[in-house]
Amino acid sequence: MLIETIQSPSDIKGFDRTQLQTLAAEIRSGLMNRLSKRGGHFGPNFGIVEATIALHYVFDSPRDKFVFDVSHQCYTHKILTGRKDAFFNDECFGDVSGYTNPEESAHDFFNVGHTSTSVSLACGLAKSRDLMGESGNVIAVIGDGSLSGGEALEGLDFAAELGSNLIIVVNDNDMSIAENHGGLYQNLRLLRESGGKAECNLFRAMGLDYRFVADGHDFAQLIDAFSAVKDTPHPTVVHIVTQKGKGYAPAESEKENWHWHIPFDPETGDALHTGGGENYGDLTCEYLLKKMKADPRVVALCAAVPVCIGFTPDKRKEAGRQFVDVGIAEEHAVAMASGIAPNGGKPVFATHSSFFQRTYDQISQDLCINSNPATLLVNTASVYGMHDITHLGIFDIAMMSNIPNLVYLAPTTCEEYFAMLDWSIEQNQYPVALRMPCNGVHHTAAPVETDYSDLNRYLVTQQGSQTAILALGDFYQLGEQLAALIADKTGSVPTLINPRYITGLDEALLEELKSAHSVVITLEDGILNGGFGEKIARYYGPADMKVYNYGLKKEFLDRYAVEDVLRANHLTPEQIYNDIF
Amino acid sequence: MLIETIQSPSDIKGFDRTQLQTLAAEIRSGLMNRLSKRGGHFGPNFGIVEATIALHYVFDSPRDKFVFDVSHQCYTHKILTGRKDAFFNDECFGDVSGYTNPEESAHDFFNVGHTSTSVSLACGLAKSRDLMGESGNVIAVIGDGSLSGGEALEGLDFAAELGSNLIIVVNDNDMSIAENHGGLYQNLRLLRESGGKAECNLFRAMGLDYRFVADGHDFAQLIDAFSAVKDTPHPTVVHIVTQKGKGYAPAESEKENWHWHIPFDPETGDALHTGGGENYGDLTCEYLLKKMKADPRVVALCAAVPVCIGFTPDKRKEAGRQFVDVGIAEEHAVAMASGIAPNGGKPVFATHSSFFQRTYDQISQDLCINSNPATLLVNTASVYGMHDITHLGIFDIAMMSNIPNLVYLAPTTCEEYFAMLDWSIEQNQYPVALRMPCNGVHHTAAPVETDYSDLNRYLVTQQGSQTAILALGDFYQLGEQLAALIADKTGSVPTLINPRYITGLDEALLEELKSAHSVVITLEDGILNGGFGEKIARYYGPADMKVYNYGLKKEFLDRYAVEDVLRANHLTPEQIYNDIF
Repeated sequence: MLIETIQSPSDIKGFDRTQLQTLAAEIRSGLMNRLSKRGGHFGPNFGIVEATIALHYVFDSPRDKFVFDVSHQCYTHKILTGRKDAFFNDECFGDVSGYTNPEESAHDFFNVGHTSTSVSLACGLAKSRDLMGESGNVIAVIGDGSLSGGEALEGLDFAAELGSNLIIVVNDNDMSIAENHGGLYQNLRLLRESGGKAECNLFRAMGLDYRFVADGHDFAQLIDAFSAVKDTPHPTVVHIVTQKGKGYAPAESEKENWHWHIPFDPETGDALHTGGGENYGDLTCEYLLKKMKADPRVVALCAAVPVCIGFTPDKRKEAGRQFVDVGIAEEHAVAMASGIAPNGGKPVFATHSSFFQRTYDQISQDLCINSNPATLLVNTASVYGMHDITHLGIFDIAMMSNIPNLVYLAPTTCEEYFAMLDWSIEQNQYPVALRMPCNGVHHTAAPVETDYSDLNRYLVTQQGSQTAILALGDFYQLGEQLAALIADKTGSVPTLINPRYITGLDEALLEELKSAHSVVITLEDGILNGGFGEKIARYYGPADMKVYNYGLKKEFLDRYAVEDVLRANHLTPEQIYNDIF
Repeated sequence: MLIETIQSPSDIKGFDRTQLQTLAAEIRSGLMNRLSKRGGHFGPNFGIVEATIALHYVFDSPRDKFVFDVSHQCYTHKILTGRKDAFFNDECFGDVSGYTNPEESAHDFFNVGHTSTSVSLACGLAKSRDLMGESGNVIAVIGDGSLSGGEALEGLDFAAELGSNLIIVVNDNDMSIAENHGGLYQNLRLLRESGGKAECNLFRAMGLDYRFVADGHDFAQLIDAFSAVKDTPHPTVVHIVTQKGKGYAPAESEKENWHWHIPFDPETGDALHTGGGENYGDLTCEYLLKKMKADPRVVALCAAVPVCIGFTPDKRKEAGRQFVDVGIAEEHAVAMASGIAPNGGKPVFATHSSFFQRTYDQISQDLCINSNPATLLVNTASVYGMHDITHLGIFDIAMMSNIPNLVYLAPTTCEEYFAMLDWSIEQNQYPVALRMPCNGVHHTAAPVETDYSDLNRYLVTQQGSQTAILALGDFYQLGEQLAALIADKTGSVPTLINPRYITGLDEALLEELKSAHSVVITLEDGILNGGFGEKIARYYGPADMKVYNYGLKKEFLDRYAVEDVLRANHLTPEQIYNDIF
């Protein structure tokens, strides 16, 4: 195989057209090998094979520097820059992450996983090059939905001011994770249909030079365009048209399903295992659709990840105008939700915990200062959530719970979650966020409260003495296990409490605990710093109560096993018991 | 005066051209009365008098709903909607805030103070209207720099998808606070120069309809344009050209100085009082210019508020390419700083504490995951900072200090601040943020440390016993006063500690304190929730140490007197002493 001859990008410089095409086919076989067995971003990587080969053919990495947006489409880049074993050799799958990673290679400059950052990061590399009096090209590769993110648009707008070399490759596959949303995609279509010749051009309107490549899978067109812009002393966009999932029929036809895919049979495209049983995405979608039918004011919003609350294409169609995908634009989504709420609308915006990080200011300024009754559903907010360094769900308590006026709730069961969600949609006093459970769907037969408007009342689920356990949200089940262990080992039944409210203290209850308890243990599924437990520790600071806060260390975890992290943070019942008793 | 006849916008509906012009002159006299005596946003409000009158002439507020971006240009709107006394009657100045405020009037829909939010909020109002089956126009008024913000660009991009009435008035005065930055302003210039006829049009490229008004001070042109777009069933941009500061010569010629102005003599334009003595803006600029001259790799970045670190136009010119104003684009600024750092550049990005809220995700993902050695200068991060609900500087510790890998430092004196800043620029291990002092320029004769790379070592500045005071940053001087009071009253000298590091615990020192101390007091100039003190409380949770955390309550303060807030939070030495002893 040709691929065996390639140790670095320089090894492809002399290839002729036939060899490049052979290489592309071999790379797709490597992608297929890894993706079918391990899962990962399928469509984005299959779609950009030729363009990545052409970039490495024309430019001289790492002297010329590539910055891949989201970097979920960097697999071909990894194969060409010394990491091919992680694709062709099953034993080496674990050697690389799914994103660019400077620790893996001198050809990577940033750990990236959120969208829309490439242009700004590339502007930085270019500015640095200019300050140091160095030369070389800086190339941002963006597309697949990322253009609509505010950070990308800020970067595109600023780039014109750089006044030196910066090449922005816009990989236009007419898709985001789901279909694209936003007016600018109309302009991309116009540019595609006019062969790049339409006068009305978003990129030129941003002050950038522009070049069009009609077939982003054609080596001649790609190499011609990249060669023409190489060493250009001003920022230039190269707009290439590609097909998401190119080269694998199921992915070409079912683009949304194949954006990211679990392991599958390459012959049929059938998944090797199917998610069984209940999940909060489907349950939430079912609930919201029912709610929408009963109340035309209810509207669900998402930002390019509709499936995080179960809104597959058919469900989106069913919801009609009561479902809005704003595209990759989380800031806009929170502000728009705030704008919907005061006039009687009932907005519910859902995205992943990690992506809410884009919206701190919008939660604070647009939403909470105005106390508008919008609902935020915080998905995969847990150590049990996503395990990549760029997608962790363990920071949202610290980030969101210290914003005034927000009511952040931590349900412990399926029934409690839907009771809280229903209350939140019906009430009109507070901005409310719900930390969607992430440790499996736990049911309770106990009656759950329907009204949460009397804020910050914790629920005592087991009255005991000596020790009180405040077990928040996803760690409530851990609290139950710990309570049983303590009772078993000491003979004394501890008090178990479901705090429910992350954003406030039940001071009456905390005060009352003093009379028959000497130890309080807090458990939370997030970092300790800035979290829930520290507020309990502050409350009891001047008192004789001993307070033990359990949660996660403030650190960026990466590709971790949950059990390892729990053990490292002393989060098994046995460890906690042994620490304290 | 005509203005005396106006109680609500409906009172101007019958006015002829002459009356409208008279009204505009009278309104400018009211603006002058308030602004010359009280200070405020001068240029933005003088520039939009005619346009605001024309909007109220054509549309029917509050059925038709206006959303002013930043809302610093809403004074004429306030005058026309029942709040004119706050401008013409000195005794009523305090009746209104400088921003839109739903508590003041049914004509205001949001408390707004940050830039770039109007389009998204207006999309929300429009969506809500459509869900409820209501009618009426929704009008966002944006401009004066705000267009370059990511939230605004996300909103513009999404607006095309609304498919119903939304009018976006772009007030183009060719300025931000300072001059505009970003490629899109080249397009606005092209549109101005072509009378709106250029085919390359940013707004059309975003999928929006477009209309141009050459003279945004001409009632006939304005009324014609607004009437034409009224009730249009799809999103439309009306691009109006205005002059910032229109009608007052000093403000027309010195636009940056007159964006916001302190009280002044209307005859001469001379400020009534001049800021005397040292300030950290000028000192920081002086330091950075010297540093830049010695090292071409040093680059200062700002996002439309260059003066927060003293970079007036002449200083910006002096810095040349080593100073970058990215425009209103804080997300881009942090990501670009991260991009500059790994290749050897030495970026320093400064903005206000409240505006760093836009960058939580960029600090986390673009900067800290990559551990790039950029420096962030956090300005007006203090209860002594800005006093409007939308510009508070008391949340940054909770927001930033819980992000892994960031080293957040709290200097207590001028000398310590510059030592920390110099260390941060020279080192290449850590992303570093500095909380710029905000309680006056305090000097110290004591030697200050020059190397902060051995993280989280607190400085004992007075060794005592029984009580230890950890006095962070701006509250170090309060700590000194408290220490003196305790020594005086109890006869026992307390230990005084300058923690310096907000982001970590000096566990060795905290452990050591246990031997001779029974009380620890923490003082911090920010909200307690998620802050520094709670981490100390957590550390001592299982111990016998009594911990008292002092700082601010988690709440949105508004137009407050610092002394009142300090007293309400028990932050005078006497109150603290009486609480504990």
